Amino acid sequence: MRAVDIIRKKRDAAELSREEIEFLIQGATRDTIPDYQIAAWLMAVVWRGMTSAELAALTEAMLHSGKVIDFTDVPGMKVDKHSTGGVGDKTSLVVAPVVAAGGVRVPMISGRGLGHTGGTLDKLESIPGFHVNLSLGEFRNVLEKCGCALIGQTPEIAPADKKLYALRDVTATVESPYLICASIMSKKMAEGIDALVLDVKTGNGAFMKKQADAEYLAQLMVETATRMGKKSVALITDMEQPLGRKIGNALEVEECIEILNGRGPEDLRVLCDELSAWMFMLGGRTKTVEEGRNLAAEMIASGRARDTFREVIRLQGGDPVIVDNPARLPRAKQVAHLDASRAGVVTAIHCEQVGVASMMLGGGRERKEDAVDPAVGLVLAAKVGDAVEPGATLCDVHYNDGSQLATVMNLLAESFEIGEKQPHISPLVRKVIVA
Amino acid sequence: MRAVDIIRKKRDAAELSREEIEFLIQGATRDTIPDYQIAAWLMAVVWRGMTSAELAALTEAMLHSGKVIDFTDVPGMKVDKHSTGGVGDKTSLVVAPVVAAGGVRVPMISGRGLGHTGGTLDKLESIPGFHVNLSLGEFRNVLEKCGCALIGQTPEIAPADKKLYALRDVTATVESPYLICASIMSKKMAEGIDALVLDVKTGNGAFMKKQADAEYLAQLMVETATRMGKKSVALITDMEQPLGRKIGNALEVEECIEILNGRGPEDLRVLCDELSAWMFMLGGRTKTVEEGRNLAAEMIASGRARDTFREVIRLQGGDPVIVDNPARLPRAKQVAHLDASRAGVVTAIHCEQVGVASMMLGGGRERKEDAVDPAVGLVLAAKVGDAVEPGATLCDVHYNDGSQLATVMNLLAESFEIGEKQPHISPLVRKVIVA
Repeated sequence: MRAVDIIRKKRDAAELSREEIEFLIQGATRDTIPDYQIAAWLMAVVWRGMTSAELAALTEAMLHSGKVIDFTDVPGMKVDKHSTGGVGDKTSLVVAPVVAAGGVRVPMISGRGLGHTGGTLDKLESIPGFHVNLSLGEFRNVLEKCGCALIGQTPEIAPADKKLYALRDVTATVESPYLICASIMSKKMAEGIDALVLDVKTGNGAFMKKQADAEYLAQLMVETATRMGKKSVALITDMEQPLGRKIGNALEVEECIEILNGRGPEDLRVLCDELSAWMFMLGGRTKTVEEGRNLAAEMIASGRARDTFREVIRLQGGDPVIVDNPARLPRAKQVAHLDASRAGVVTAIHCEQVGVASMMLGGGRERKEDAVDPAVGLVLAAKVGDAVEPGATLCDVHYNDGSQLATVMNLLAESFEIGEKQPHISPLVRKVIVA
Repeated sequence: MRAVDIIRKKRDAAELSREEIEFLIQGATRDTIPDYQIAAWLMAVVWRGMTSAELAALTEAMLHSGKVIDFTDVPGMKVDKHSTGGVGDKTSLVVAPVVAAGGVRVPMISGRGLGHTGGTLDKLESIPGFHVNLSLGEFRNVLEKCGCALIGQTPEIAPADKKLYALRDVTATVESPYLICASIMSKKMAEGIDALVLDVKTGNGAFMKKQADAEYLAQLMVETATRMGKKSVALITDMEQPLGRKIGNALEVEECIEILNGRGPEDLRVLCDELSAWMFMLGGRTKTVEEGRNLAAEMIASGRARDTFREVIRLQGGDPVIVDNPARLPRAKQVAHLDASRAGVVTAIHCEQVGVASMMLGGGRERKEDAVDPAVGLVLAAKVGDAVEPGATLCDVHYNDGSQLATVMNLLAESFEIGEKQPHISPLVRKVIVA
């Protein structure tokens, strides 16, 4: 088999065999096929797409490039949730303890934030002492003890994805639904799970701006999971404005604690309930999604989800007291306020710009190697549909380094649109895609 | 400027600026942009194509990656001919001395054969002592002395093409008319010429099997030449059967000498006349192509073209006596004969297979690094349209190493189709594409 022939075949829109795809992925992982051939093939895939069979073969080849965790000896069903990422998207920190408290195990391997979107690992690391870099043995140990565990990517998991992603990043081949699907699913399928709930974001703060693109990706992921013998569902959810009111690592942990205490913003609460409900149902814990919603509500009302969150923090080396006293979380030194310049109704909040503003404060990363400041971020006082008076606060800006503040304030001022008429607000869960 | 943004732009079918194309080509040549980015960009070009402006910018960037020869101080017009390659395609060795004898200078930089097609340099090197690796100073010297000079690619000419071609070869990005055009034109425009006649082959023995593809490439090349201020014309010519009767390096030199002596096969003679005629006209030596044909005929009838050929061989270190005594050319030790198995008319000769047969005898290269045997090759006793009797010779096979002979004979036997009805023979010059 020669790489050039496989590239040519894809270039000419023919279907690659499982063996050809395995040959390429093994070659990429072991560095026996040069990067320039992989890069040309990646662009041909962006061009020609993939059939379901090719996509399943690619996902499996990437999955088997590394270790596949076997949790069959851990009792109970194992279910994870994956989000394609957005602004203020912090549901993992709520659903993991809620679902674990309800009796379904959640072994969750997450990523870091980049650009305008945040990442679960950065949020967790704002909890003093919290370790995300556990070994797979420690991962299992935490999972067995408290029902969930929240760690970062380990080098053993899907090394092919690490290799391909680095190449995609510099060859403008990130934006292919097929390559995105294989990347996500190869890592998720390595977690030793029985089922996966996908939260596919759409809107101006999401990776997929158009709902049709989000639905297409969701369909690919659900199909791929099915081909690999796993249950899954995808929720197409709104990312036209930030989720919840708090953006920034420690601020988002704080907001999750509000939710676990039965408070917090409605949109975030609803989405956490929906995701948890589907995880309960796919995990066989409830017969219907409706029952799943009730179970999720019960886990919160009883405080059991909060107890599980306290426990997972303790087991992963973090300060469990933050759950009861969030003031112990890192706090920015300064707070500036963005005020409304006129009376009216908030008709839009440009979500991607808000994410960029948080990043510029130091809450996110422009480049992979950048450090993040756990304390900084934004608290939205107004969301879309809220009436505001002149001088009323739209947004609090928590900052430590004031050097970029003027730019950030301008960016935020441009992000809020205030008009006369109540805007149409699309439902948070726009569509559910099942296998 | 970042390579990834330029790749993305092309991927998304936007037009690249001259500066962006220069940035990429300089980066490729100087190795400041990694091969994987160039490879992804090449595949995006295969996908999206190029506008005329992009193609001219690419050709110029590749041209200026190296030395551009300046022959303005060499008196007279300088005109070259380029062929996209075929089987038995030996016209360069005829038109260069014909046109030079007629008063237009021909500075010709040629290539080697690969696969089923032959190359001018390999043919020239079958002349004992002939040097193709002249310095640019020696090239000029020979051109001034006898009106033509025939050399190989030097490292100073279009190094970007060398770099890109090596990458294209291993990333399945050879077959793009835009990349083919830029590759050819960047090298030809470095020759210090005023005009260029293009022989774009089509048919089963050509690179472009379909006439529409050949015409498209021809159009791109003529347009690109015009944008670069050079006169040009493209002849779309037939490569459904080998050109002339002899295939193989020394055998083809021998057939060129027949033509220069006013003999030789008609198809080859006609094509050499047409190409020479256009070179005369574009070089301003004649007002019309018809006058150009007459001048070419005169150069042959008078023996002046033959004298020029003798002279260029002498100046480039070769044995000039071969022109008068072709028996001094290398000769294979053995000759086998392929005979017709039945009576009928030759309805087709599968040109690419015949080229592969010659290559297998050692007359061509499977890989770039292979050596060629100058003596071996084929002499077609019958061409398409010829009536044959059972037992009549279809083809003589000149060989030195008999190890592949059985395979070659089988391949050749399959290459000749014999039927009942006189086949349709398309004209040799199918179309002329002018700027």
